Parts: sequence; structure tokens; C-alpha cells
Amino acid sequence: MPLVRIAVRQGKSAAYRRAVADAVHEGMVEAIRVPKEDRFQIVTEHDADGLIVDRTFLGVDRSDDAVIVQISLRRGRSVELKQALYKRIVEKLADGPGVRPADVLIVLSENDLADWSFGNGEAHYVLNPPQPIAAAA
Amino acid sequence: MPLVRIAVRQGKSAAYRRAVADAVHEGMVEAIRVPKEDRFQIVTEHDADGLIVDRTFLGVDRSDDAVIVQISLRRGRSVELKQALYKRIVEKLADGPGVRPADVLIVLSENDLADWSFGNGEAHYVLNPPQPIAAAA
Amino acid sequence: MPLVRIAVRQGKSAAYRRAVADAVHEGMVEAIRVPKEDRFQIVTEHDADGLIVDRTFLGVDRSDDAVIVQISLRRGRSVELKQALYKRIVEKLADGPGVRPADVLIVLSENDLADWSFGNGEAHYVLNPPQPIAAAA
Repeated sequence: MPLVRIAVRQGKSAAYRRAVADAVHEGMVEAIRVPKEDRFQIVTEHDADGLIVDRTFLGVDRSDDAVIVQISLRRGRSVELKQALYKRIVEKLADGPGVRPADVLIVLSENDLADWSFGNGEAHYVLNPPQPIAAAA
Repeated sequence: MPLVRIAVRQGKSAAYRRAVADAVHEGMVEAIRVPKEDRFQIVTEHDADGLIVDRTFLGVDRSDDAVIVQISLRRGRSVELKQALYKRIVEKLADGPGVRPADVLIVLSENDLADWSFGNGEAHYVLNPPQPIAAAA
Repeated sequence: MPLVRIAVRQGKSAAYRRAVADAVHEGMVEAIRVPKEDRFQIVTEHDADGLIVDRTFLGVDRSDDAVIVQISLRRGRSVELKQALYKRIVEKLADGPGVRPADVLIVLSENDLADWSFGNGEAHYVLNPPQPIAAAA
């Protein structure tokens, strides 16, 4: 169910972009039990004037290689699950494409079950609600 | 009032992109009575690594030509209206640009009347609230 | 905390894009007291088929040079603060890059404190909540 928008710096390889997308998805699968097949991502590239991040806000040491991840997902994950999600995404991004943890900004936007159509014009989660949200592992 | 972001696969014609945007808007006008003139859309093109959709999630048979539609709109449409909206957008996309119904992902994000400024720095809907949301046709 | 997506028309100079981003940020700093360092923006360029705005909706006289600003920010600003924000952003955009006030569409999406990670996988505002939202100046 999540729709994920990932903004990366221009000039990286296609393999890097793919690894970033993979890492973000794996983080979601592992931390908040998103089904492996529930993957919908938009990855965009931006030059320095198109991806502007402060270098020090809240004491985080950001670089030119910032990655911004905006996730739309259904309402209801606990604060603990969200914390686990941030931690896992950042670990995966460090392990795979080698993104520095300080360079990962993550923002969530919650909506409701009726706000999703996965194809064929159906509101899938109205008739067949997904699994209840699991507690943190 | 809606702001609509539409992501399509790169390499299609300008006519295709325009027909996709037209179809989404017509679906909104017909299904949830958005005024014809209330049209604000951002259409982006993405290569295969930039627009990632699972091919089978929830049993929907998606292809390379997936279209992702993310709609920001004011809170309050009923579940029935949202279902009608998905159905109509998908019909319009099939009729016009010929998008396969299985290839259309739609996600809604609701906000409030004070969250919109349509120009000149005014919060138009604070002073002049729009029509109440109509029931499904 | 805000994440700001700004869509401008293609074919403008890098200086114009930067001035637009600066103006939007200054408007947020001045009107709703976002910290100066709390700046995270994604600026994208679009051709005429990629940035579609109605020319007259609600009596606003829009042109080819429309700018769409979508701001994700934490829940809780009053209607008065939002009105002040729209007004200030539009003034700054007129003063700096010379954007016509009628050409500025602004949309807000609110979320919660736990929905933000500013790096290192931390949910910064869970452990260290930001300043309470100030009243309008």
C-alpha cells in the first residue's frame, strides 16, 4: 500500500538509483511488514538547485548526496513502528547503495483504507481490508 | 481544488500525456463533481527505474505502462464517492489514451479547506467555502 | 520540518529557480517561524503539458508562468497562520524572482511529529519536540 517518492541527486548510476529503491523497500518490508509485492515507487533525480537540504539542521551532518524519501501509507502505525522504520531504512541504505545515514530524510503522510486503488478502478481495501497493523518486531 | 500528480512511463507522445491528464480530470468532474475549471495537474515522465510498480500485487496484472495518480483533495468524500471516482478515472483512461485498467494506481491524500490558496496569497475557501460535497450520482 | 515541493515552468534560469526556492523559504520563516535552517525543498521543472493550471478558476488570472508549491508540515497551524503564510510567500515571490501573485498555487498537507526523520534514522521530534506553534505575528 505505500506509495514512495524518492528524490536522489542527479549524476548517479542507474544501479545506484535501483539500489536506493530496493533498500527503502526492504526497510519497509522488514520494519513494518509491508508485503514484499506491495511495491510502488517513484524515483526522481535532481541537480543541486533541485534538491535543497540544509547541511546542519538539528545537528545532522548532511552532504551533497542527500536522499529524500516521502512515504504515503495508511494511518495507524505506532510511534515505535515509525521509529523502527526509520532505523531500518537508514541501515539498508547504508548497507546497499552506501548512503550515509545523515543524508536520509524521511517523511510520512498517512491516509485511509478507502484512499487506495491498486488497479481496475477498485477500492481494494474497502472490500478486503489488509492485515491489521502488527506491533513492532 | 484537487492537486493531481500523474506519473507516466517515459517515451510516450505529448498527445498521450495530455490525453492521460484530460482523462483523469474528466473522471474527477464526472464522479465527484469537481468544477471543470478546477484543474491543477503535474504530469511527470519516468524511465523503468524511476517508476517501479509490482506486477501482481493483489492479483492485478500490471504492465510496463503503469500510471500512478496521486490526488490531494479536501477531506470528506464518502467511501462510495471514492469508489465511483476510481471507477470513472479508469474508464476515462481506457477510453481516451487507452491505458489498461490494471495499470492505474490511484492514491488520495485529504486535507482541509484552509490548506488551499489558488493565487494572490488568499485562502479562498476560508472566506468562500465551496459547495458542500455532493452525494454519489 | 516542512518538506516543500515546488513546480516551475521549464526554460527559466537556474537563478530564477533558486530565487523561487529562496522566496518560498523566506515566506515560511517570516510567517510561521520555521527555523532558517529547517529547509528541505525539491524544485522541479515542467513543460506546458507537465504543469497544467486552469487560467481563471475562482477568478484568478493565471499565466504560463504558474508556480505550484506543495508543503508537508506538522499539524496545528491556525487558519490565521495559514493565511499569513500564503500572503507572505506570494509577496516574497513577487519581490524576488518576480512571480505574479496570481500565478502562485499553494497546497498544505499536515502530518504528525512522529512522521519526520531528519537523518540518522532518528525520529527527532519524538524525543525532542519542537517549539510549540506560535500565534500569528
